[in-house]
Amino acid sequence: MTQDVRILLVGLGNLGRRFCDILVEKGPQLETDYGLRLLIVGAADSRGTAYDADGLDPGQISRIKQAGGAIADYPRVGNSRETAADLVASRGADILCEASPVNVNQGAEPGLTHIRTALQRGINVVTPNKGPLVLAYQELHELAQRHGVQLRFDGTVAGGLPALYLGQRDLRGATVERIEAVPNLVTGYIMELLGDGLSWDEALERARHEGSLEADPSFDLDGWDAAAKLVILVNAVMGIPAKLEDVDRAGITGVTSEQVKRARSGGRVYKLLATAERRSGGRADLRVAPTLMPPDHFLSHLGRKQMGVIYHTDIYGTIMAAIDEPTPVPSAATMLRDVLDIYLT
Amino acid sequence: MTQDVRILLVGLGNLGRRFCDILVEKGPQLETDYGLRLLIVGAADSRGTAYDADGLDPGQISRIKQAGGAIADYPRVGNSRETAADLVASRGADILCEASPVNVNQGAEPGLTHIRTALQRGINVVTPNKGPLVLAYQELHELAQRHGVQLRFDGTVAGGLPALYLGQRDLRGATVERIEAVPNLVTGYIMELLGDGLSWDEALERARHEGSLEADPSFDLDGWDAAAKLVILVNAVMGIPAKLEDVDRAGITGVTSEQVKRARSGGRVYKLLATAERRSGGRADLRVAPTLMPPDHFLSHLGRKQMGVIYHTDIYGTIMAAIDEPTPVPSAATMLRDVLDIYLT
Repeated sequence: MTQDVRILLVGLGNLGRRFCDILVEKGPQLETDYGLRLLIVGAADSRGTAYDADGLDPGQISRIKQAGGAIADYPRVGNSRETAADLVASRGADILCEASPVNVNQGAEPGLTHIRTALQRGINVVTPNKGPLVLAYQELHELAQRHGVQLRFDGTVAGGLPALYLGQRDLRGATVERIEAVPNLVTGYIMELLGDGLSWDEALERARHEGSLEADPSFDLDGWDAAAKLVILVNAVMGIPAKLEDVDRAGITGVTSEQVKRARSGGRVYKLLATAERRSGGRADLRVAPTLMPPDHFLSHLGRKQMGVIYHTDIYGTIMAAIDEPTPVPSAATMLRDVLDIYLT
Repeated sequence: MTQDVRILLVGLGNLGRRFCDILVEKGPQLETDYGLRLLIVGAADSRGTAYDADGLDPGQISRIKQAGGAIADYPRVGNSRETAADLVASRGADILCEASPVNVNQGAEPGLTHIRTALQRGINVVTPNKGPLVLAYQELHELAQRHGVQLRFDGTVAGGLPALYLGQRDLRGATVERIEAVPNLVTGYIMELLGDGLSWDEALERARHEGSLEADPSFDLDGWDAAAKLVILVNAVMGIPAKLEDVDRAGITGVTSEQVKRARSGGRVYKLLATAERRSGGRADLRVAPTLMPPDHFLSHLGRKQMGVIYHTDIYGTIMAAIDEPTPVPSAATMLRDVLDIYLT
C-alpha cells in the first residue's frame, strides 16, 4: 500500500532543482522500499508557481529551470500571477520544502514567512535554508509544536552531513561540552588557493568562476555563514538558545597568502573554525575565526570539498564526522532525508 | 508524567557494570529531559541473578561487581540458583539489555538464546553483543518483527560511534556503494607498538596488561572481530544478507615490526581495514586485511583509541565518522542510546 506525500517545493535554484532530479531518480525505489510516493504538487520560484494536485513532473521542472526558464512556463498549470507566498498560504500539502535563497542579514525573507505560514496551517516543514532557523529558532519550534507538525532542517549546517541528527538523536542522554566545526566550504578553498600562490583577487575570481562564491561574497568571507551554522548547532545540539549576535566572529579577509604558505611549509593548514564551549548557567561561548590548525586535529585533515564537525561529550566519547561533497547533490538530498525521517520514525 | 522502562540487564562485565554507572549518573536528567525512568528490575551474571520489580539499585550492582562479587550477593533479592536464562524466560520487563561476553565461534551462546527468548516473549532487545547478530541477523530481525518489538545493536560495530544509526537512518534513500571501516581498536594499537620497536611478544604483553586484549587474543588478532563487525554493517546498511564465511579475512599476525617502521618512516600507517564493495545481483565483496593506508585516507589519521567508518553513497556524498574512545564508557552508553531511541522515535 503506497502513501502519497504531497510536497510544496519553494525555491528552484541549486538545491530545489537537484531535489527534483533526485526524485526522478529515486521515486520508484522509494515506493518499493518505503511505500511512499513523493509528489511535488506545487512548485514556486521568484517569478511564479505551478500547481497540480495530482503531482507535477519533477523532471519537467528540472528541465525548465536548467534551461533558464521560470516555473510559470510549466505547461498548462504554470502561473506567473501567483507567488510562492500565495502557494504556501492556500494550497493543500503534507510538507513544505523551503529552499529559497539564504538570507540572514535581511530578516531571512521570504523563507521565514513561508515557514511560519506552513506551520500555522499544519503543514510539516523541511528546509536547508539557514536564515529562518538562525533568526527565529525558538519561535519556529514552538509554532511547530503548537500545530502538531514537524520542522526539519538537516541541510542548514554542513551540507549533506547529518550533523544535526547525529548531534540531536544519537547523543541523547549525553552532555555535549564542546562543538568544533568547519561548516563552510568556500572559505577553506580560498585559503588553499592563497597557499597555492594566488592573490586575493585571483582566488576570489577563481571561486566565483567555479560557482562556489555568491554574488555577495561577504556572507561567506566575513564568517556569517559559519556563525549562522554554529548558532543552529548550539541551539539544536546543546539546547542553548544562542543567537547570531552571541558569536565572536572573524572572517578570513585578514589572512594573507604568506601566512598560508608558511603554515603549509610546516605541514599545517588554516581553517575557518567554529567552536562552542558550554559554560555554566546554560550559556556557551561561540567563536568563528580563521585558525592555524594543530597538525593532528581531526578537522585539519579535511580536503577542499569537505566539511566536518566534532562533538565532545561526557558519555559517548568524542565523535567526529565529515563529508566529502564535490557537488550540491548531498545538500539537496538532505530534503529527502528529512522527508523520509518524518514519515519513517 | 514519568514512564517506567523496566530493564533486564544480562552480563555485568566491562559494559554491563558501566551501564549501571551511567544510569546512576544520568537517571535524574533522563526523567527531567525525557520523562523516562530507567529501572533495572533484573540483573544477571554467570553466577546468578537478582530481581526486584520496583528496581534494583544500579550503584549497588556496580559496587558489588567492582569488588569482584557476584550479583547473587545482592542484598535480599540476590539468587545463586536462578540463571540468566531463567531470568529472561520468566520475568516481566520492557527491554532486555544483553551484554554477556562476546562469542562468535561457539554459537554465540548464551547471548543468542537470551535474545531469542526475549523477542519471543515480546520484550524489546538492546545488545552490544556481536555474536548473536553475526550468526543470526535475519532470523532475529524476523523474530522481532513477528512479535512487534524492537531489536537494537548500535554497540556491536564501532564502540560508541553511532555507525549503524548513521548508516541505516541518515542514509535512507541512498545506495551505499562501498563501506570502509577500522572497527577494531587493539589491532591498530598492537601494530603501533610494533612500529615503536616492541617485539610481537612485548606488544601482546603490553596490550594484555592494559586490558585491551582478551584471554583468547585470536578473536582480535586473526580479524574475526573486524569481520563480524563488517558482516553486521553490510546486513544493516547495505541490506545484503552477508555471513561471516563470506569475508575474505586476514589478521595482523603476519605484519612485522620492520613493515610498520618502514611505513612510518614514509609517513604512513597500517590499519586492519574492513571493506565491503557492492556488486550486482544483491551481493557484496567483503574483505578484512592489514592495509598500508594511503597517506590522505580519512582512516589513516585515526589515533590509537579511535575507530571509524566511511560510507560511499550515491546521493549523500562520502560520509566519514570516527570516535575517540579512551575508555569502555561510550560502548556501554550505546545501550542508553538504544533504549532512548526505542522510546523517543
